[in-house]
Formats: sequence, structure tokens, C-alpha cells
Amino acid sequence: DPKLKVFTCNANPALAKEIVDHIGLPMGNAQVVHFSDGEVQIKLNESVRGADVFVIQSTSAPVNEHLMELLVMVDALKRASAKSINVVIPYYGYARQDRKARARDPITAKLVANLIETAGAHRVITMDLHATQIQGFFDIPVDHLLGVPILGKHFAEKELEDIVVVSPDHGGVTRARKLAERLEAPIAIIDKRRPEPNVAEVMNIVGNIEGRTAIIIDDIIDTAGTITLAANALMEAGAKAVYACCTHPVLSGPAIERIENSSIKELIVTNTIPLGLEKQSNKIQALSVAPIIGEAIIRVHEELSVSKLFD
Amino acid sequence: DPKLKVFTCNANPALAKEIVDHIGLPMGNAQVVHFSDGEVQIKLNESVRGADVFVIQSTSAPVNEHLMELLVMVDALKRASAKSINVVIPYYGYARQDRKARARDPITAKLVANLIETAGAHRVITMDLHATQIQGFFDIPVDHLLGVPILGKHFAEKELEDIVVVSPDHGGVTRARKLAERLEAPIAIIDKRRPEPNVAEVMNIVGNIEGRTAIIIDDIIDTAGTITLAANALMEAGAKAVYACCTHPVLSGPAIERIENSSIKELIVTNTIPLGLEKQSNKIQALSVAPIIGEAIIRVHEELSVSKLFD
Ligand SMILES: Nc1ncnc2c1ncn2[C@@H]1O[C@H](COP(=O)(O)O)[C@@H](O)[C@H]1O
Ligand SMILES: Nc1ncnc2c1ncn2[C@@H]1O[C@H](COP(=O)(O)O)[C@@H](O)[C@H]1O
Repeated sequence: DPKLKVFTCNANPALAKEIVDHIGLPMGNAQVVHFSDGEVQIKLNESVRGADVFVIQSTSAPVNEHLMELLVMVDALKRASAKSINVVIPYYGYARQDRKARARDPITAKLVANLIETAGAHRVITMDLHATQIQGFFDIPVDHLLGVPILGKHFAEKELEDIVVVSPDHGGVTRARKLAERLEAPIAIIDKRRPEPNVAEVMNIVGNIEGRTAIIIDDIIDTAGTITLAANALMEAGAKAVYACCTHPVLSGPAIERIENSSIKELIVTNTIPLGLEKQSNKIQALSVAPIIGEAIIRVHEELSVSKLFD
Repeated sequence: DPKLKVFTCNANPALAKEIVDHIGLPMGNAQVVHFSDGEVQIKLNESVRGADVFVIQSTSAPVNEHLMELLVMVDALKRASAKSINVVIPYYGYARQDRKARARDPITAKLVANLIETAGAHRVITMDLHATQIQGFFDIPVDHLLGVPILGKHFAEKELEDIVVVSPDHGGVTRARKLAERLEAPIAIIDKRRPEPNVAEVMNIVGNIEGRTAIIIDDIIDTAGTITLAANALMEAGAKAVYACCTHPVLSGPAIERIENSSIKELIVTNTIPLGLEKQSNKIQALSVAPIIGEAIIRVHEELSVSKLFD
């Protein structure tokens, strides 16, 4: 369909390429470069007039750079008369700043939603938001895709025995249950408690893990503190082996070192964020979200085409 | 006045300190830091409830970092119930992307104005916008300060003789005329022409510069290509000496090298953008805009206090 165009900024061009290959489209011809002083410069090298345009850009690190690239791209598309501007944000940065955890905190996840709408986006496709409430931060439609089917398929194919799916905190239980259903396994929950102020947290395990293969699931793994402590606690409590998985491999600071030194046997992630050179580890394997995002783009584009009948 | 508070982000803390010292206020207690993954974290360590708050932040390089710091700070102040949020942007980045110079260009200067309003700013104080039209990109009041009085005072005190003030292009004539009036000097204009496509530009000088001391004035000096070529052209055409000045020392890429190797005797700039270590040169001297910005803050705050009588 000549009216469907897909562009990418610089966060994850490899994923974007896989997505357009899946759809069977050429990549939209644009360059996202910088002026000498570091300001973002967008060169849209083809017409987008009347087209349904999809822009693929995770707001992963460097987050402010990647966010601004996306906003400037949306501005350029808007002024170039795109019919609809659909932003595909596989990893939505700033998602953990989604409430005032302390007095006078900003709510940056909401600010970012406002910025994206202000730039001129009409719709958002994203994956595994840290809090599903973030969908409500937008006044435009949000398609929320899940990583669990991809992660579940991987573990199902491994044919592990006596699995228990573990949520590293109470907030992640729904996600753990979804994975457990796919693997026909029970769940367990890590219940972190600080017995007294300024005393180290204790990891209580709620559920039966003795002699079982534990699979910890989280949405984001950042510095990997929680997940590696959880893995060690599970081994100490008698688990046979510990696997871990997440959708978004942020993996900042000491993450790789911690994972290497932990009792995690294998960490399965997706490519919403690319595993740069500094994030390589024999323990980590990335699965592609390109098919799931490609299908979502096709479906949304069909929807937009149908709705044109009523325009 | 306990109801006036001034905060700064990370672009130019030294200037911010000079400004609060000029006003006679302590610096607002806040930290603008980063999480492990590079996301901006704001810690507002004092109440701003009911206060008229001013945030000082140039959107200089790294521009996207500095812009986002400003936006998150404004979000935090808004949610902390500041009465008014006044952003002081001594150097307004992205100002040169103020129109569609080519088909499908973004207009990022307008996008940034929208982002600042969306975050929740009520008023902008800025200096020497690249195009005065940018004031119209905002729907909130903009106080537009000029660098010419500071630059003019410096050159007046030097007691140079037979001055001619030179505009490096036709867009800068108004600015050059303002400086010329202060120095009671005539003006000249550099008229760049490309005789044929793909032939080097020729610098024609309109006005009498023979035997005179030329002072070139511009708003921004970025890679310093134009200004150094202009200086050399002026010397070749018989100027006695060439000085240069600008408000915003962007000085990216080859700027310092070009200035060092040019016939510019002295380059006078202001501190809207700090001269980092990589921008040091014996030829460059920075004048402070702190008094002029400090006075603007005092005046705006008085205005806000008066208007409260009518609330
Ligand atoms: N980029 C980040 N890295 C680490 N912590 C963050 C980040 N953004 C927000 N937070 C903090 O993480 C907490 C929210 O995380 P959670 O409890 O998992 O929803 C809040 O205290 C935030 O201040
Ligand atoms: N940061 C930048 N560095 C260099 N050129 C820029 C920058 N931003 C915009 N421009 C270009 O500068 C031109 C406008 O500058 P001017 O003609 O001086 O107003 C346009 O062609 C822009 O594409």
C-alpha cells in the first residue's frame, strides 16, 4: 500500500529494519543527523503527503536525545502533511517516574506523553509499559503490546521440567501469572521486607520452589540488583536452577557484572532496546519483537484505512 | 521577598549564581541529577508553594539534555504548586530551525516553544533570539533582552578610534545599527554572493571601511566560518583592525581554531553559554549578562506582585 510509510530514528535501526522486512515495505527515506552544535537535524527525503506514517523509536538511553529525535521527526511529518502520525515506542523511557513517590517529584512519564501529543502524534504503539496507568496519560489511542507471548514461546520450546514462574515483587504478579499460564506452571512471589529502618531487606519467598526450575520475569531489568538478589535467594531456598527474563533490557551501570556473577543461568530479553557492545554476555539472549510490532502496524493501518470510508 | 525563588538546572550554574547574588537571594535548593540509565531526576528540596519561581537554563549543548532538564523541572514546580513558573533561557537553542528552509523541514524552534508551554511555563525571559519572530511562537509573555548594551559598553570603554560596525549579513543590520548608535559610528554590511552555482561565495563589503577599526557583530557565533572569512575580507579591503562580538558563543567544531588563525584581534562574547575548557582562547573574553537578567527578574517579579492586587 503506497499510503503506508515506516520511518525510524536512531535508537534501534536494526529492529526497524526487521519490522519493515516483516511488513514487506522499504524503509522510509529520512536521515536523523546532527548539526555541528549537536542540534537534531531531520532530512525527510520523500513525500509523506496523505500517508499513514509510523515512526519507530524507543526512548532508551541516551533517552533525551532519542526523545527529541522522535519529537522533531513528528513535527517534520506533521508539517509535511502526513495523514496520520503513529509513533511506535517499543521501550517507553521515563516510565518509572509515573507518580509522586516523594513530595515535589515530577511525573515525567506524563510529561513525555504530553510532549508526544504536542508534537503532533495521533496514536502510540508501545510494549510492556512499566505501569498500565501510563496508557491513561495519553489522550490519543495507545496500543499496548506484551512481551509474554514471545518469552513464553521461548521457554515452552526449552521443555524445562517442574517450572515455577517467579515475580520479583508484588507489582509484577499479573505478568508472572500470564507467563505461568502459558507454561502450565505455578507461581511464586518474592516478598521484600525491611525488618527495621536501615537494616538490609530480607527476601521472603511466597510459594513452593524447592527442587523446581525458577523463571523470574520482570518488565525492565536496569541495574539488575533486584533480580540477581532474587536469583540467589531462590537458589539458597532450594531451587534447581534459575532463569530470568524481561521485555526491556535497560542493563545500566553494574548490570552485566551482576548478572555474570549471579546464579542466573540464562537471561532472556527482547530487542526493544539494542544490546550494545557494553551489554554483551554469554548469559543473555535477545528475542525479536519485530513480528509482533510488524503485525500491530499492519492491523492499525487496516483500521485507519477502514475508518477512511467514514471520513 | 520570600515569594520569589530562583532555581537553576545544569547548563550554566555559574551564571545562575551570579544572578541570585545580583538579586540578593539564596539559590533555590534543588538537584538536577541522573538515574543510572541517564534519565533526568529532579530533587526539589524546598517548598515552592505559592511562590513566583524563576528557572535559569540555557538550551545550549548538549541541547536535548538541557531542554529536558528544563521541562522536567517545570513539571516538578507545577506539581509542587508554584504560583508562577518563569523560565529564563539566556540562550535559546534550536532558534535557527525557525522556518522551512527546505521542503519537509521541521520548525524545531516552534516545537520547543510548544514543549515549554506544555510543561507548564507561564513566562519566558530570553536574550537575542536568532529571529525576533520566535517571540510569536509562544502564547505566553516573552521578555526579550538584548546583548548590545553590554557589548557596546565594553567597546565604548576601549576608546577605539574611527570605528565602523559591520553586520556579517543583511539579517543582522538592525543589530549592527544599534551598536553603531551607541558608539556613534557608521555601519557597513557584508554582502555574500555566489556568482554562479558551485562557485565559492564572494564577500562584497558595502560601506566604507578603509583605514577604520571594524567591529563585526552577530547574535550567534557557531563554527565561526562566516565571521572569520568576513574578518579576513575586511583586512584585505584595508581595515586597520578587526574586532568581533556576539551574544551567544556556541563555538562548535572548528570555531576556536578558525578564530585563532583569523585576523580577528579580539572576540567579545557574553556568558549566556559558558566557555568550557575546549573553548578557551586568549582572543576571547566573556562579559556577564547576570546584571541585565537579574534586573529583568526583579522587574517581572514586581509586575507579578502588582498584578496580584487584581487577582
Ligand atoms: N530511571 C530510573 N531509574 C531508577 N529509578 C527510577 C527511575 N525513574 C524513576 N525511578 C524511581 O523508581 C521508583 C518507581 O519504581 P517502581 O516502584 O518500580 O514503580 C520511584 O521511586 C522513582 O523515583
Ligand atoms: N544548529 C544549527 N547549526 C547550523 N545550521 C542550522 C542549525 N539549525 C538550523 N540550521 C540551518 O540554518 C539555516 C537558518 O539560519 P539563518 O539563515 O542564519 O537564519 C537553515 O538552513 C537551517 O536549516
